[in-house]
Amino acid sequence: MEIVIIGAVAAGPKVASRAKRLMPEAGITMIDQDDFISYGGCGIPYFVSGDVSDEKELRSTSFHMVRDPYFFREGKGVIVRSLTRAVSIDRKERLVHVEDVATGKKDAVKYDKLVITTGSRPNVLPVPGRELEGVYVISDLHKALAIKEDIARGKVKNAVIIGGGAIGIEMAEGLADLWGVDTTIVEFMPQILPRIVSPTIAAMVQRHLNEHGVKVYTQEAAKEFQAGGGKRVAKVVTNKRELPADLVVMAAGVRPRGELARDAGLLVSPQGAIIVNQRMQTSDSDIYAAGDCVEIPNIVTGKKFYAPLGSLANRQGRVVADNLGGIPSVFQGCVGSFIMKVFDMCVGSTGISLEVARAEGFDAANAQCVQSDRAHFFPSQALMFLDMIIERSTKRVLGLQGFGQMGDGLLARINAAAGLIERRAVISDFSTLELAYAPPFSNAVDVLNAVANVADNLVSGRLKTVPVEDFMAWMDGTSDHPDWTALDLRSSKEAAGLVERFGDKWISMPYDKVRSSYQSLPKDKMFILICNAGTRSYESQCFLRSVGINNSLVLPWGLNVCMRLGAAWLS
Amino acid sequence: MEIVIIGAVAAGPKVASRAKRLMPEAGITMIDQDDFISYGGCGIPYFVSGDVSDEKELRSTSFHMVRDPYFFREGKGVIVRSLTRAVSIDRKERLVHVEDVATGKKDAVKYDKLVITTGSRPNVLPVPGRELEGVYVISDLHKALAIKEDIARGKVKNAVIIGGGAIGIEMAEGLADLWGVDTTIVEFMPQILPRIVSPTIAAMVQRHLNEHGVKVYTQEAAKEFQAGGGKRVAKVVTNKRELPADLVVMAAGVRPRGELARDAGLLVSPQGAIIVNQRMQTSDSDIYAAGDCVEIPNIVTGKKFYAPLGSLANRQGRVVADNLGGIPSVFQGCVGSFIMKVFDMCVGSTGISLEVARAEGFDAANAQCVQSDRAHFFPSQALMFLDMIIERSTKRVLGLQGFGQMGDGLLARINAAAGLIERRAVISDFSTLELAYAPPFSNAVDVLNAVANVADNLVSGRLKTVPVEDFMAWMDGTSDHPDWTALDLRSSKEAAGLVERFGDKWISMPYDKVRSSYQSLPKDKMFILICNAGTRSYESQCFLRSVGINNSLVLPWGLNVCMRLGAAWLS
Repeated sequence: MEIVIIGAVAAGPKVASRAKRLMPEAGITMIDQDDFISYGGCGIPYFVSGDVSDEKELRSTSFHMVRDPYFFREGKGVIVRSLTRAVSIDRKERLVHVEDVATGKKDAVKYDKLVITTGSRPNVLPVPGRELEGVYVISDLHKALAIKEDIARGKVKNAVIIGGGAIGIEMAEGLADLWGVDTTIVEFMPQILPRIVSPTIAAMVQRHLNEHGVKVYTQEAAKEFQAGGGKRVAKVVTNKRELPADLVVMAAGVRPRGELARDAGLLVSPQGAIIVNQRMQTSDSDIYAAGDCVEIPNIVTGKKFYAPLGSLANRQGRVVADNLGGIPSVFQGCVGSFIMKVFDMCVGSTGISLEVARAEGFDAANAQCVQSDRAHFFPSQALMFLDMIIERSTKRVLGLQGFGQMGDGLLARINAAAGLIERRAVISDFSTLELAYAPPFSNAVDVLNAVANVADNLVSGRLKTVPVEDFMAWMDGTSDHPDWTALDLRSSKEAAGLVERFGDKWISMPYDKVRSSYQSLPKDKMFILICNAGTRSYESQCFLRSVGINNSLVLPWGLNVCMRLGAAWLS
Repeated sequence: MEIVIIGAVAAGPKVASRAKRLMPEAGITMIDQDDFISYGGCGIPYFVSGDVSDEKELRSTSFHMVRDPYFFREGKGVIVRSLTRAVSIDRKERLVHVEDVATGKKDAVKYDKLVITTGSRPNVLPVPGRELEGVYVISDLHKALAIKEDIARGKVKNAVIIGGGAIGIEMAEGLADLWGVDTTIVEFMPQILPRIVSPTIAAMVQRHLNEHGVKVYTQEAAKEFQAGGGKRVAKVVTNKRELPADLVVMAAGVRPRGELARDAGLLVSPQGAIIVNQRMQTSDSDIYAAGDCVEIPNIVTGKKFYAPLGSLANRQGRVVADNLGGIPSVFQGCVGSFIMKVFDMCVGSTGISLEVARAEGFDAANAQCVQSDRAHFFPSQALMFLDMIIERSTKRVLGLQGFGQMGDGLLARINAAAGLIERRAVISDFSTLELAYAPPFSNAVDVLNAVANVADNLVSGRLKTVPVEDFMAWMDGTSDHPDWTALDLRSSKEAAGLVERFGDKWISMPYDKVRSSYQSLPKDKMFILICNAGTRSYESQCFLRSVGINNSLVLPWGLNVCMRLGAAWLS
C-alpha cells in the first residue's frame, strides 16, 4: 500500500508516523513545498520573543533530533519530499502531480490512499501599503526568522499588531516584554479575543496588557500602512489615529488551504475548508484530510466550524492513521478549549461564550465566581475569575472561561470542564465534580465547583445579579442608570471612601450587621449588593428576601472585578 | 423547622450555611465540643510548618472574618453551641442530650431534622510510651498549636513521623523544610503512600524526600517510644533500629466517629462509619450524616469505602442542605482524587491504583508515559510521569496517577481525568480529550492524551513492556533475571558509559540506525529496549516486529525513571 500525504507540518507527520507503526510494510511519502517541516507553529511567538532561542528547537524532538527528512527516513521509515509542491490531484489515476520548487521539474506520485494536510494560510487584509518592508503576516517559520532578524538588527522601535486574537496578543507580549518594543494592538471588534471570552474578561486582559506597556485600541481598523523615506513601513493610519510603526504584524486569523482539494472535485465548505466525515474521509473515500484545512463539528452547537489548532490537528492525524491501518476510529469534533499566557496572567476558555450561545439560539445565562485559586491561607494564592455559561432550561453547561495568575491553575479548571462539556454535562455534574484537593492546590470547595453552585443559585432564581458590564457603565457614567443604591457589605472602614464619594447612593452595612440593621434601609430603592467577591452579597440577598426586601441585585465578582478593570472611581 | 447539627468543622458548617440560605425561617443550631470550629483541618501541616503563620487564618473567611459563634450568628443566622458535647440522641423524643464541657451542666436540644457531622479521630497505635510528652496525634487544632509551641521553644531537633501517608509526608516536609528539624518517616508497609500510588511512583517520592533530608524507612514498625531523663520522649525503637526523637507524630490514619450514631441505633459499618443513602440519610430518614463519619460509594469499584477528605465533606454537606431544603439532591460517591506537594515536586492520583484494581478482581494493566509538562522548547518545562490503570477487556480507565514538578500542571491532568473516570470513560475518551493547548501550558499531544495512546498500544498488543520494578530489581541485583540484553536507542555517546559497564549485556544502537543495522543483532536474546522516555523504544519495537524480531520489551518511562530513582548503576 502506498500512502501519500500532502503537507508535513502537524497533522501530516502525525499520520505518517502512526500509520508506519501500524503498517510497517506500507510505503509512506510526505510532500511539502517548504524545507522546514514538522515544526511547532504555535511556538513561533515564543521564538520571536526570544523565549525559544533557536528555531531548531521548534522542529526538534524532545530527544533533540531535528525532524528533517533524514530523521523521518531513518527514524520513522517515512519518505519526505520537501521543497516539492503538490500541483493537482488526479483521482482517477490516483496520482498527485508535483513540481520541484527549486527546479520547476514536474513529476507524479502514485497513491493508494491520499491524505491532505495542507493547513491554513493567514488572512492578508487589503490595506494599502501591505507590500512595504516590515509588514508581515506570520505564515511560516521563515517569516518568524525574518521578524526576529529585523528586531535583532535594531530596526524595530514601534510595532503595531493588527488583530487582538490569541496570536496577536502573544506576539505583542513577545515584542514588548523581551525586546522592549513599543507595541500597540489594533482590533476591529469592540473587544480583544472577540467571541472567545466575555467583554469583561477581555477588558481585564486588555488592562493587564496596558499595565505592561502594550497599548490596545478596539473598534479601530488599519486604513493604510505608510512608508517613511524608503521602502520600510513607518506609520499605521487607522480610522482614528496615526501610529508610528517600523514593524507591522497582521494577525487577522487564518483560513483553510482547501484549493487543491476543491480543484480535485472534493467537497469544500463555502469558506474553503475540506468537508470530512467523522473518520476524516473526504467526499472521496480513499482521500482523507486533517488539520487546519478541514472543518469539524462543534460539539456544543452541533454545527460545523473552523478550529485551526495544532492540538486538534494531531488528534485528527491519529484518527486518520488508525483508519488507514484498519482500526475503526472517529473524531467526534471539539468544544474549543483555549488557553494563553498574557504576561503574569492567563486567560482560557472551553465551550462557547455567552455571545455565541445567544447567537446560536440558546436561552443562555452566565454565572460568575471569583475565589482564591488555592487555600486563601496559602502564600502563593491569587484570585481566579471564572464565568460559566449555561442553558437555563436544561441546566446544561455550554462553556467556561476564566482569568487568573500565570501558572497551570486555570488550565486545571478548563481541562476538567472540557471533558464534561463534551459529554453534555449539567450544572450539578460540576457542583459535585471531584477535583483533587490540598491547600497548596485548591480549596475544599474548588472555584470550579463554586461557580457551578453559583449557576445553580442563578437558574433556580435564588440569586439575582446585575451584569458587570452594566454596573461598570453606570459607575463610569457612560450609560444612564436606574435609581439604584449600592449596599456595601464590607467592613465600614473598607466602605468609608466610597460612602464619602457617593453620598446616599452608597450605603455601608457590614455583612455581620445586616440581620440586626436591615430595618433602617430605605424601602423604595433598588439595591446593588456589593462585597469583594459576591458571596456575602448572595447570602445577604437571601436574607433580605426573607424579610420582604426583594429589590436587590448582586454584583457578581464584586469589587475584585472593578479593581482588575482599574475603575477610576475606586482610587 | 428546627435543624440541629452535631459537629462544626467542615460538613457541619456547610450544611448550616446552605440550609439557612435555602430556608431563612428555619432555626439552625450547631453543636461542637471544641471552641475552635469551622477550620481548615487540611491546613494544619502548613500551620505547623510556618507557611501559615497564625492559626486564625485556618478558621477565617477569605474576607478575614474569624468563623466563630458571633460570625455564624450575625453573618449566617446560625446558632453555635461550642464547648458543648453531644452525649446521646433520643430519636423517639427527637432530642439531643448535651453537656457543657466546662461546667458539666446537662441539657437537651430539640430537633425536627438532625445532621451528624462528627468527623473522624486519628488512630492511636498501641505503642508503649505513647503517653510521653512530645508524642502527638493530630486530632485537632489544639494539637497543632502544641507542636508548633514545642518547635518554637527549641525543644525539637529530631522528629519521627509514624506513617508515610499524605499527612505524614506533609508534616515531615513542614518540619524539615522550614524548621530544619532532622526528620524521619517510619512506614509499616513496603512503600509510602501505600495503595494510593504505584511502588515506583512512591519510590520517586521517597527519593525526593531523601534529597531534601527526610529519611524514610519502609516495612518498619515503631515498637516503643522511650523517654530520656524526664517525661519527654527521646527515642523511637523500631523493629530494625533506634531513632533519636524529641517529637513523635503518629499519622497512622483516621477512623470515623460513629459512636453517637451507633448508640442511637443507626446503622454503622463494621469499621464504625455511619451508613447513608445517596441523599446522605442515615437509617433514620430524619437524620442525615456527612463528612468523615460516613462511608460512601467508590464509583470505580462500586463498593462502599471510607474517604475522609475536606473536599468531599463539603460536597456532601451541600447535598444534605439541599435535601433538607426540598431540593432533591444526591451524592453519588467518589473516585478518590488526591494531590499533594512534596518539596519541589507533587504527586497525585484519581481512581484506583493497579494494586487495588487487581485486588478488586479487575483484569488490570498499567500504561506509563513521561513527557514535558509543556512544550519541550518552553523554558519552564519539566518532566511529568503519568501512569494510567486500565481494565484490559473493556478498555475502561480505572485510575490515573502521576509525579511532576510542583505547580498545578499535575492537577490539570488529574482533574481532567477525574470527571471522565466518574463517567466510566474508556481509553479512546482520553486519547481524544480536548485539553487546552498553548506552548507555555502543554503540548499539542498532551501527556494525558499520550498516556492514553500508550494504553491503547498496550491493550492492543502492539506495545510489550517490562515492569519498571522488575527492571530496577534486575539492575540493582536484588533479583535474578532472565537472559536479556539492553538495546540502548539513545545516541552512541549517551550509551557509551553503560556499554562499557555492562559489556555485551548492553548494546548501543541509536534510534536512527535501527532500520539499517538491525541485522547485526543477536537472534536469540530477549531485548529490553531503552531510551529516555519510551517513545523511541516503542517505535523500534514496531519496526523490529515487522522484520521478525519479536522478543523485545520496552522499558516504560525509559531511563528518566531510573534517574529519578537515583539508580546507582547510572552514575
